[in-house]
Amino acid sequence: MERQYPSAALERAVREFSTLPGIGRKTALRLVLHLLSRPEEEVRQFGQAFVSLKSEIRYCKVCHNISDSDVCMICANPKRDVSMICVVENIQDVLAIENTMQFNGLYHVLGGVISPVDGVGPMNLQIESLVERVAAGGISEVILALSPTMEGDTTNFFISRKLSPLGVKLSVIARGVTIGNNLEYADEVSLGRSILDRTPFV
Amino acid sequence: MERQYPSAALERAVREFSTLPGIGRKTALRLVLHLLSRPEEEVRQFGQAFVSLKSEIRYCKVCHNISDSDVCMICANPKRDVSMICVVENIQDVLAIENTMQFNGLYHVLGGVISPVDGVGPMNLQIESLVERVAAGGISEVILALSPTMEGDTTNFFISRKLSPLGVKLSVIARGVTIGNNLEYADEVSLGRSILDRTPFV
Repeated sequence: MERQYPSAALERAVREFSTLPGIGRKTALRLVLHLLSRPEEEVRQFGQAFVSLKSEIRYCKVCHNISDSDVCMICANPKRDVSMICVVENIQDVLAIENTMQFNGLYHVLGGVISPVDGVGPMNLQIESLVERVAAGGISEVILALSPTMEGDTTNFFISRKLSPLGVKLSVIARGVTIGNNLEYADEVSLGRSILDRTPFV
Repeated sequence: MERQYPSAALERAVREFSTLPGIGRKTALRLVLHLLSRPEEEVRQFGQAFVSLKSEIRYCKVCHNISDSDVCMICANPKRDVSMICVVENIQDVLAIENTMQFNGLYHVLGGVISPVDGVGPMNLQIESLVERVAAGGISEVILALSPTMEGDTTNFFISRKLSPLGVKLSVIARGVTIGNNLEYADEVSLGRSILDRTPFV
C-alpha cells in the first residue's frame, strides 16, 4: 500500500511525473523534491515549458519533422541537397543521422513503421505524402533508413512498391558488422549480410 | 557535439527536463516526445502542476514536514502520540517510516545532517526548533532515526548534547543485520553490531 503524501500539490506533481515512461513514484518524488530545492522562478519556468509545449510545436509541411514554423530548418536550408530524401521513422532518427554529419539531403519522417500487432497500417504513416513529394519531381534518390527489423523491412517493401512506378533510385542503409566490436561477438545474420554485401577494398 | 533540435519549444522542454538529476538529453528527448504524443490538455496539466508547485507547498510549523497548511496532517492528527518525536533527515524518511506502520508519534524533519564537506552545519538544520519543542515539555522520548553514516552519527551526537540537559529519554534506531538476507553476505560492522546489541529471544 502506497501512502499519499502530506500535501496535495506534492501529490499532484509526483502523479504527473509518474505518468512518464520509466518514472515510478519513488523517482518522481525524488525529482519533485529536487525541484522544491530550487528557486521558485526556476520551477515556474520548468512548468511553463510544458504548459505551452503542444501549442507551440508545429510539424514541417514538407518532411513532417518537428518545427517551429511551417517549413523546418532542414527543409528551409538552401545549402542542403534537395534531390536526396532520407526516409526515417521518427525525429530521434533525424537527430541521430544529423549527428553523423554524413548526410546533406532532406528527410521524410514517417511517424512509425507498419506494425499490424500495434494496429499501425500504411494509412497511419506519412507514406502518401512521400509518394507525392517524389511524384512532384526533382528527386534523384530516396534512401530508406528504417530500423533493420521485420516491421522496418515490411515498411521498406511497401514504400518500394509505391515508389518504383516513379522510376526514382531507391537505396537502403548498409547492414553489416558494427564498427569497433570483435567479430566473434557479431550476430550470425549481420555477419552473413556483411559478407554478401562486401564492398571493394580501397 | 550535440546539435540543437529543430524547434525552440522542443529545445526548451528538453533543456528543462535535463536539469533534473539523473536525466540526460537523450532521456529528456524521449520524455518530451512521449508528452507530445499525449492530448494537449494533459500536457498543459503536466506543466501546470509545476508552475504552481513552489507557491502552493508549505512546511509544517511544528515538524517542518511538507504540508498544505500551517500544521501538517500528522501533527494535526489527534490519534497520534504527541509525547514521542522521531527525528529524521528529510520527508522521504517520514514516508518510509510511515509505510512501516510501526510508529504512531510525531516527527521532526531536520532538513539534512551535519556535513562540513557539503557546508552543512547545525545552524542550517532544524535543530534549534527541536530543542524548543522538547523544552516546551510533554515529550517522553526522542527517537533518532538518521542514516547510519558518519554524518548521521555526528548529527546524533550533536543533538544528544543539546537535549541531554533537558532530561528527555533519547534512543536511536536499531542497527544490525538486514532481514531476509543470508548472514554470510552481511557486512562486518553491521554483523558485529548485531552481536553487541542482541535482544532477549522471546
